[in-house]
Amino acid sequence: MLPIIERVPIVQLASGDRLFIQVYKFIGDNPGPKAYIQSNLHGAEIAGNAVIHQLMELWQQVDASQITGEIWLVPVCNPLGINRRSQHFSSGRYHSYDGKDWNRIFWDYEKEATDINQFASSQINLNPDEIATNYRNIILKHFHKLQEEINAASGVPFVEQYRYQLQSLSLDANYVIDCHSSTNQGLDYLYCFSSREESAKAFLLDYAILMTEYDGDAFDEAGMKPWLALEKSLAQQGNPIQFEVESWTLELGTGMQMNPQSVAKGVRGIQNYLATKGMLEIPGFPLPETDLHSVNFIPKDRIRKYYATAGGMIQNRLPLGTLVKKGDCLYQLLSFDKTGELPQIIDIPAVESGLIADICTNYSANQGDYILSIFQGETDKFMIN
Amino acid sequence: MLPIIERVPIVQLASGDRLFIQVYKFIGDNPGPKAYIQSNLHGAEIAGNAVIHQLMELWQQVDASQITGEIWLVPVCNPLGINRRSQHFSSGRYHSYDGKDWNRIFWDYEKEATDINQFASSQINLNPDEIATNYRNIILKHFHKLQEEINAASGVPFVEQYRYQLQSLSLDANYVIDCHSSTNQGLDYLYCFSSREESAKAFLLDYAILMTEYDGDAFDEAGMKPWLALEKSLAQQGNPIQFEVESWTLELGTGMQMNPQSVAKGVRGIQNYLATKGMLEIPGFPLPETDLHSVNFIPKDRIRKYYATAGGMIQNRLPLGTLVKKGDCLYQLLSFDKTGELPQIIDIPAVESGLIADICTNYSANQGDYILSIFQGETDKFMIN
Amino acid sequence: MLPIIERVPIVQLASGDRLFIQVYKFIGDNPGPKAYIQSNLHGAEIAGNAVIHQLMELWQQVDASQITGEIWLVPVCNPLGINRRSQHFSSGRYHSYDGKDWNRIFWDYEKEATDINQFASSQINLNPDEIATNYRNIILKHFHKLQEEINAASGVPFVEQYRYQLQSLSLDANYVIDCHSSTNQGLDYLYCFSSREESAKAFLLDYAILMTEYDGDAFDEAGMKPWLALEKSLAQQGNPIQFEVESWTLELGTGMQMNPQSVAKGVRGIQNYLATKGMLEIPGFPLPETDLHSVNFIPKDRIRKYYATAGGMIQNRLPLGTLVKKGDCLYQLLSFDKTGELPQIIDIPAVESGLIADICTNYSANQGDYILSIFQGETDKFMIN
Amino acid sequence: MLPIIERVPIVQLASGDRLFIQVYKFIGDNPGPKAYIQSNLHGAEIAGNAVIHQLMELWQQVDASQITGEIWLVPVCNPLGINRRSQHFSSGRYHSYDGKDWNRIFWDYEKEATDINQFASSQINLNPDEIATNYRNIILKHFHKLQEEINAASGVPFVEQYRYQLQSLSLDANYVIDCHSSTNQGLDYLYCFSSREESAKAFLLDYAILMTEYDGDAFDEAGMKPWLALEKSLAQQGNPIQFEVESWTLELGTGMQMNPQSVAKGVRGIQNYLATKGMLEIPGFPLPETDLHSVNFIPKDRIRKYYATAGGMIQNRLPLGTLVKKGDCLYQLLSFDKTGELPQIIDIPAVESGLIADICTNYSANQGDYILSIFQGETDKFMIN
Repeated sequence: MLPIIERVPIVQLASGDRLFIQVYKFIGDNPGPKAYIQSNLHGAEIAGNAVIHQLMELWQQVDASQITGEIWLVPVCNPLGINRRSQHFSSGRYHSYDGKDWNRIFWDYEKEATDINQFASSQINLNPDEIATNYRNIILKHFHKLQEEINAASGVPFVEQYRYQLQSLSLDANYVIDCHSSTNQGLDYLYCFSSREESAKAFLLDYAILMTEYDGDAFDEAGMKPWLALEKSLAQQGNPIQFEVESWTLELGTGMQMNPQSVAKGVRGIQNYLATKGMLEIPGFPLPETDLHSVNFIPKDRIRKYYATAGGMIQNRLPLGTLVKKGDCLYQLLSFDKTGELPQIIDIPAVESGLIADICTNYSANQGDYILSIFQGETDKFMIN
Repeated sequence: MLPIIERVPIVQLASGDRLFIQVYKFIGDNPGPKAYIQSNLHGAEIAGNAVIHQLMELWQQVDASQITGEIWLVPVCNPLGINRRSQHFSSGRYHSYDGKDWNRIFWDYEKEATDINQFASSQINLNPDEIATNYRNIILKHFHKLQEEINAASGVPFVEQYRYQLQSLSLDANYVIDCHSSTNQGLDYLYCFSSREESAKAFLLDYAILMTEYDGDAFDEAGMKPWLALEKSLAQQGNPIQFEVESWTLELGTGMQMNPQSVAKGVRGIQNYLATKGMLEIPGFPLPETDLHSVNFIPKDRIRKYYATAGGMIQNRLPLGTLVKKGDCLYQLLSFDKTGELPQIIDIPAVESGLIADICTNYSANQGDYILSIFQGETDKFMIN
Repeated sequence: MLPIIERVPIVQLASGDRLFIQVYKFIGDNPGPKAYIQSNLHGAEIAGNAVIHQLMELWQQVDASQITGEIWLVPVCNPLGINRRSQHFSSGRYHSYDGKDWNRIFWDYEKEATDINQFASSQINLNPDEIATNYRNIILKHFHKLQEEINAASGVPFVEQYRYQLQSLSLDANYVIDCHSSTNQGLDYLYCFSSREESAKAFLLDYAILMTEYDGDAFDEAGMKPWLALEKSLAQQGNPIQFEVESWTLELGTGMQMNPQSVAKGVRGIQNYLATKGMLEIPGFPLPETDLHSVNFIPKDRIRKYYATAGGMIQNRLPLGTLVKKGDCLYQLLSFDKTGELPQIIDIPAVESGLIADICTNYSANQGDYILSIFQGETDKFMIN
Repeated sequence: MLPIIERVPIVQLASGDRLFIQVYKFIGDNPGPKAYIQSNLHGAEIAGNAVIHQLMELWQQVDASQITGEIWLVPVCNPLGINRRSQHFSSGRYHSYDGKDWNRIFWDYEKEATDINQFASSQINLNPDEIATNYRNIILKHFHKLQEEINAASGVPFVEQYRYQLQSLSLDANYVIDCHSSTNQGLDYLYCFSSREESAKAFLLDYAILMTEYDGDAFDEAGMKPWLALEKSLAQQGNPIQFEVESWTLELGTGMQMNPQSVAKGVRGIQNYLATKGMLEIPGFPLPETDLHSVNFIPKDRIRKYYATAGGMIQNRLPLGTLVKKGDCLYQLLSFDKTGELPQIIDIPAVESGLIADICTNYSANQGDYILSIFQGETDKFMIN
């Protein structure tokens, strides 16, 4: 089947030109849930574009009868971030105009909701589907009030207009997948909200960050937090429900690259996830290994980031994916003193044991520049069979 | 008298070079409070450097016997932000490395304090000076725990190290003054915390923004909020105290400029403020007009910012300082359509009445770019005699 | 009359979006020369957009019978440069990708022509119109060879593709006008090629830079130099001809602004110029003051630019348009030493007498940053009656 | 032996801070030629810093009696370029202030010399050493005239002051080595001036670009061109001499990295080169393989650079070092159309056969962005035994 393609204007530039996003909608014959998949929200994180392109190619061979519900795809979802260049580099992690991180701008209903407990108690006699419908309507009603400010003569900053456009497409979806990658060079893993660990398996990735703390206003958080808050409230009122609402951020390898292995994992994982959810009926899926797949969950507060403790050049850094013991030398800083002394070598030891999960692309470091990340824990925890 | 000059290393760069700040300390013969004054935290906001320089020149004619307590001056306090250039412009409002606004990075004790009420009740029998001393010691103790992370091999992002250095100098001060200006072109005014309105008069500025809401982690907020929280707690416990702790942000006109009128107002206001506080004894100060001076307080949530509702060029904008009525045309957007049409003129009306308090320097606007700010209110409120 | 509007694709961005320029063609009833007018080649230099817009408005009241030949208008001619932001600023003077100045990229036939003398002698028996036609054909033939490289699978850097698009529109024009302004804050003036001084008067501006030296590959130079070379060769061969080919760069005041006075001068000057050339027949034009208008020509090598001799803040700068004598203090640098010393004031004297013609917008200066420009000469030369 | 360390101030920043370079001088017991080696002129090209550091470590084990002449080392030679960050990236290829490529700013005596032929004929009876001395004195005399402008109150742009400082250190050297790398990801090779092919062997690299054309004002060119011009003039006058003056640019792999293999080749090559020139007497050097080493010379105009012919994402690119035949698919562009169509895959064939010598780090491409470089030629030419 061919997708329905919709073109959404995003911004008019000073030159009068306009930038767009396109939504590719695969609408199944059978009614059902909505899945929303986007990529390249951060300018350098392009791997998901290849993932979405390959899904589109694959699904052109699929019949509408094989899809239940609808799947919306939004590749290259952030034109301003994507087209940004600093010399040769894609520096669009934050908006160059105001420094706003493109993935910390989203509208989170939980932050303005004052009455979730009250809503929960009002739904006590309804079934989960009814509650979900009622809650979603409330969220959407509050969300669409934003339009007033956007349409006023006083306008809004671009990020507020842009988030409205993306969330208009995604806020009513059951399953949201946001394809990212490292800004630098990273392993493949995903972010998982507490209580959705079982669903995470379907992506068939080895590692998942468990959201023990929030960055604030990230795309996945803004979609998921209001539902987790409602579930918590219902549970406290003796009515434990888990809604069919899930939000995922996939981290597919290295920035400014579309590494074929990472892309293949993304394609496989998303197809398998949708098959598991009953939205996609294709031969062989869900893959038989899904049930046995074991995900290594790392609590978010167990990731330690290393920053340069002096200015200099990085050498002898342990490679991505290395298991390290506390005290192992992670890397050296070659620091060229400017006070008449010889250059100095500074050894940087691991503060705790763990797995090197992300490393910087740039081996030149001002003091305080990011160097690498470690998933901390006993090293045998990270052994993959 | 000459100040004591102290040099504080701020960062080692990749090239091995180091950047510094200098603290100029005027220490009076008589013990007393500490005042801390800094400038140029945002790269483009340079007017305060001239203010501090003129204060230094004036106080070299002053005798140590005329100063009670000590006054610390830190001009050009953010070398990384100041030296940053984007072509000819000082674009250092945020750190180019991570997009962090240089004035949203500071450590706020209130955010980690869990026991302010408990502390307040424990001090019930002490006098205000004793309470202040005890509280300051607690704040400083928590603050200096940050050093552990900074000194670890894993290091910290530059902004965390930098804030530690600036707050080490200022966190024990009674009076903190942070000299800013518009990033664009603005009136002269100051930010005032609730309950400090009376002290604000001494700066002899016409307008003050009343902090009805917080930006979060700003330099003035980080210094002041813990004390406001304690005062509130004490008051709730029937022990209303206002501590001799105040924190101010002065906005001295236009960015990338040191406008002589704005600088003169800054110099006059700071001298008058310190004289009012009894720290500076110079002839004629406090100025006689202080008592009668009336400050126009604008609640922070009454500032409305205008953003371009289309891409284009700005023309016929009303000038800075104009009083506008609702519906007045504030400016026009000349928008060059790229769909085969003629250019279009879009009139932008004022959404509410008020005073144009800030205007953008750049008349070319992508959709969502900032255009101007209005202090909203009836126009007669803003008439200055 | 309404212009014919043509839309020209300029670039496809990584996100798949495309940017365009639009050409607005006013085609007269009577055949005749071609005029080409563009604006905003440098991102911050927007004044010409208002000029072109006002010309379009005016000419919609004009009948095709009043125009001889055709006038092509290309406002906002450089979308990549125009939409570029560094924080709030329009930093698109050079392409952020490769540092290429947008006005130093153009194809100059003179640089590859090896046989201008030979061509000149081959035309000895032809009249000026025939020679012009033959020469233009040669230029265009060479120019369009560039298309081969552009269309090859190996592609070309964006600047080479972009220059091809702009020069395709302008290379066959008789009169080319490129509307710039200062990057900073400047007077209104124009650039004039040697031998075209008489034509320069029609723009009714007070100052003109006489091109005694070339920047290399500027838009005006690329259009004009081949013709000057042919004229020189013909003259050397005893056949002095001045072709009806002229190329002008107008400097209309301050960057990031559309100052109404500068815009009005641009509109008046261009209409008067076109009327003088017989292309535009509107009441009152050519303006009677044209004949008596005296332009103050400043040889290009008599402009002296001042750069900061130390790092610091600029104060007490003489204003734009000031006449200075050698030795006058132009400005002071307030330099905050970081070696434990007090700040220092450095007076900067004028090296020669002259007129302050351009000043920087940013009063914060790293050593070597641009401060101001002086048209050097005896000050009475610059007195305007 | 320990080097003598000299600290040279480079610039005072707006904040008052100063940046420096350090020169490490290994001065031999025996008088002789001067070698000058620098690294990191372009901000991202850091590999040479490790090379120079390792040379310093090695030579601390060497006795002054083993060195003839003096060897000056200048690592991290461009603090402004090195410390520059655009988000995480080292974008200091050009000066962010004015877009000037840091390696296209140098003073080239040949460009201002008007009398090289006359000088050549005046030296007809002198021996090569005398001629070299006389010529060098002339070059230095002209060079040091630049100081006048630098010291004037009007100052000079930073790049002109900076080049003066670097060339003051290097202009009297016999052997100049400038350690670069790819901005992106490249092979190891060097640039070789015509007539110095024999000397190039000592670096033991597989490829060398033969300078059949000049970039203009590069560091190596500025040092070498005046001497090549004199040699040519002398030869024309029947007095063929090759002076002991050589200038090299080493390209050591990938940008923002200090790849150990590239660094090792740099260390080995430089030691072997200096040993071959008789400046360094260490066991085993010159390496025995030097004589038999065969360098593959590629004329500069045989390098073809590929640029994106559409906007999109790069996939299936052939790896660095691949030999390709004309017509081979080098890479694909995945282009996300924004006109309501499906994404498109564009195959990019090799225009000519050759070796992939450099590839871009960023797989996201605006139209006209750089993709890769090919040393063009029959593929068997590039086979390495």
